[in-house]
Amino acid sequence: MKKILLTGFEPFNQDSINPSWEAVKLLDGLNTHLFHVRSIELPCVFGQSVQQLSKAIALTQPDIVIAVGLAAGRSEISVERVAINIDDARIPDNANNQPIDIPVVADAPAAYFSTLPIKAIVQKIRQEGIPAGVSQSAGSFVCNHVFYGLMHHVAQHSPNLRAGFIHVPAIPQQVAKGGSNANQPSMSLTDIVRGLRIALAVCCTQQHDIVVAGGQTS
Amino acid sequence: MKKILLTGFEPFNQDSINPSWEAVKLLDGLNTHLFHVRSIELPCVFGQSVQQLSKAIALTQPDIVIAVGLAAGRSEISVERVAINIDDARIPDNANNQPIDIPVVADAPAAYFSTLPIKAIVQKIRQEGIPAGVSQSAGSFVCNHVFYGLMHHVAQHSPNLRAGFIHVPAIPQQVAKGGSNANQPSMSLTDIVRGLRIALAVCCTQQHDIVVAGGQTS
Amino acid sequence: MKKILLTGFEPFNQDSINPSWEAVKLLDGLNTHLFHVRSIELPCVFGQSVQQLSKAIALTQPDIVIAVGLAAGRSEISVERVAINIDDARIPDNANNQPIDIPVVADAPAAYFSTLPIKAIVQKIRQEGIPAGVSQSAGSFVCNHVFYGLMHHVAQHSPNLRAGFIHVPAIPQQVAKGGSNANQPSMSLTDIVRGLRIALAVCCTQQHDIVVAGGQTS
Amino acid sequence: MKKILLTGFEPFNQDSINPSWEAVKLLDGLNTHLFHVRSIELPCVFGQSVQQLSKAIALTQPDIVIAVGLAAGRSEISVERVAINIDDARIPDNANNQPIDIPVVADAPAAYFSTLPIKAIVQKIRQEGIPAGVSQSAGSFVCNHVFYGLMHHVAQHSPNLRAGFIHVPAIPQQVAKGGSNANQPSMSLTDIVRGLRIALAVCCTQQHDIVVAGGQTS
Repeated sequence: MKKILLTGFEPFNQDSINPSWEAVKLLDGLNTHLFHVRSIELPCVFGQSVQQLSKAIALTQPDIVIAVGLAAGRSEISVERVAINIDDARIPDNANNQPIDIPVVADAPAAYFSTLPIKAIVQKIRQEGIPAGVSQSAGSFVCNHVFYGLMHHVAQHSPNLRAGFIHVPAIPQQVAKGGSNANQPSMSLTDIVRGLRIALAVCCTQQHDIVVAGGQTS
Repeated sequence: MKKILLTGFEPFNQDSINPSWEAVKLLDGLNTHLFHVRSIELPCVFGQSVQQLSKAIALTQPDIVIAVGLAAGRSEISVERVAINIDDARIPDNANNQPIDIPVVADAPAAYFSTLPIKAIVQKIRQEGIPAGVSQSAGSFVCNHVFYGLMHHVAQHSPNLRAGFIHVPAIPQQVAKGGSNANQPSMSLTDIVRGLRIALAVCCTQQHDIVVAGGQTS
Repeated sequence: MKKILLTGFEPFNQDSINPSWEAVKLLDGLNTHLFHVRSIELPCVFGQSVQQLSKAIALTQPDIVIAVGLAAGRSEISVERVAINIDDARIPDNANNQPIDIPVVADAPAAYFSTLPIKAIVQKIRQEGIPAGVSQSAGSFVCNHVFYGLMHHVAQHSPNLRAGFIHVPAIPQQVAKGGSNANQPSMSLTDIVRGLRIALAVCCTQQHDIVVAGGQTS
Repeated sequence: MKKILLTGFEPFNQDSINPSWEAVKLLDGLNTHLFHVRSIELPCVFGQSVQQLSKAIALTQPDIVIAVGLAAGRSEISVERVAINIDDARIPDNANNQPIDIPVVADAPAAYFSTLPIKAIVQKIRQEGIPAGVSQSAGSFVCNHVFYGLMHHVAQHSPNLRAGFIHVPAIPQQVAKGGSNANQPSMSLTDIVRGLRIALAVCCTQQHDIVVAGGQTS
């Protein structure tokens, strides 16, 4: 049985909730014949977020780590392919940091690829009737920062740990409120939780990724 | 207690399901202290759809009629404001008719406004956490055709009947399948049904519409 | 030779220019073997805009009137099909009016259709390499207000006058500035002017519209 | 005076023209006090495209190389930040290759960052009234392949060569034709050429990039 560490984020940018944490919280403590889940909430803060994640990995010794974040404006669960070594913030984080074009980790590789079976996850989620896709960019804000920090930690300390990042859409409640989320696509929290749960199972059963197209022309 | 006639459409354009009928079907027979619902499925065919709707109105003598259709690509429940007197089909209907720039009804008004309390419906659906908005165009295909035919029937035969049209998004299952629905926003069938049920209640309790902005700049 | 009256709008909503007037201004005074153009700028104000347009029609006695407005967010020249009898303003106009769900003209028809050859205009503009389409909604702000006011004036006073409305995209300069226009599609002023000039010629030569699909499914 | 090598692509995916080559071709031979331009057309083929580019670099010994490609669907000139070491083709290339999840170069870094002053380029193009932005993903098709191949060549053989990739929108003529490009945003070839020319000048004058936000939240 695999130990899975799941992370979600606290709210940011004037939102009062963050669906990544709402979803991940609901999976905390889940025990199946395949896996056991431990979920934690990360601050939406450069630096601190990665430090807390690294501590949690040291503490819980998971086999799999999946960090989850909100991608407002996207309509599907998007499984990220690659983390890049850059922080470039359009808006301040929750501690009012706004790094611009600073490496996440100095003198480290330009990028890391997810080691989750991303194509298999997407295929299985879609087979269960939930929109999903591979994404080629996790942005350059705290989500990408945590994704890169996670993969760098793995590369340095835990080469056998399987790790990656999944972005989820806004939930209907956020969009219905209007404001900066108005007119955006959304996904029900139920489908987000179902989709993540499918991802967890696939990570436990799928040793190598499948070969199906999932890229983008541009 | 109000008698409500709800209509949904059969699938069209290579889809195997139409969420408008899936949702409306689930509300068939619903009895509350405010209303009783009778739901019927309309063919996605110019002419026949309006004929069947007119027959159902004559037969069931409803107080309120709400026709519901699919608007693939939209991310919210959209309450239509106006039906226009034109059929202009980009694709053939299910009987292979493709009228171009033909009036729905010859020598009839250019348009009819919905007589539902559209702003109150939108406000209440959003208060319940479901994305919704007013739409200024129901297109020029069978949805607008049924909407116009319905309002013309009301104008001719049943001036006290309250009537209008609501478009609903694609559901996640359609988008997950890929094909022509790939990458579109979606809404869970549960939220569509909840949203429609709210609309029904508002139509029974809200005699006059509320005054809140809901238009579009262009 | 036809006399054509063209109108554009003054800037609104924090913009310093309005491409509708920038384009229309460049066509003022144009003489070809088919037509002579007179262009005027309308205030972005409910009521006044229609009054000034009506005066200009009375004064210049045109054969054709085309009102032009900005549709930020659209990527093509959109030839409007129908004006609806409603003012519903999301934002105040330039005189700080914000009518909500008020008819443009009390006790007047719900809508008027454009009497321009809309499909022929779209086809010809596209043949010349410029994106164009038919639009089923001119919104519910001052553009629709002027369009409706124009068509009502024609219906009341000048049944032989050919009239309609064309929306144009933002221009690159507006989008490059960022702010509320950031990330929107745009069209060069040159292509907007070329497209409008094609529209003028088609209105002079095309007595009846052509029969090609141009509607929307929803 | 700097020697600049510019590349564009041949048409692909049923298009008869590729605006990247149309634009780059117009800059071929340009001599200013800052730079001299040499432009070449690359095949839209995995492998061959990079081989031809490497040969051209060896032959012309440029100081700066900018590869340019089409990003249909985008509305601005997008200056790419990072090339990733993956080929994942949704559609076959022009030689009918469709690699899926294959590294561009085996045993090479996961990614390379552009060495162009990307923020300064974006700022200057926008100051000249042309929409532009930084992009965090060049996709996973032949554009990213060439970008990665270029940066790997530089890393291996020409550490002082400044190099990067710029995506340009579709041009109006492609969109006006309809088909797979219908309804997409576009940019005039004139503005694309002007934007690229600005980029060339900035690469010659701007030694270090400027510090302004240009990232994405997700």
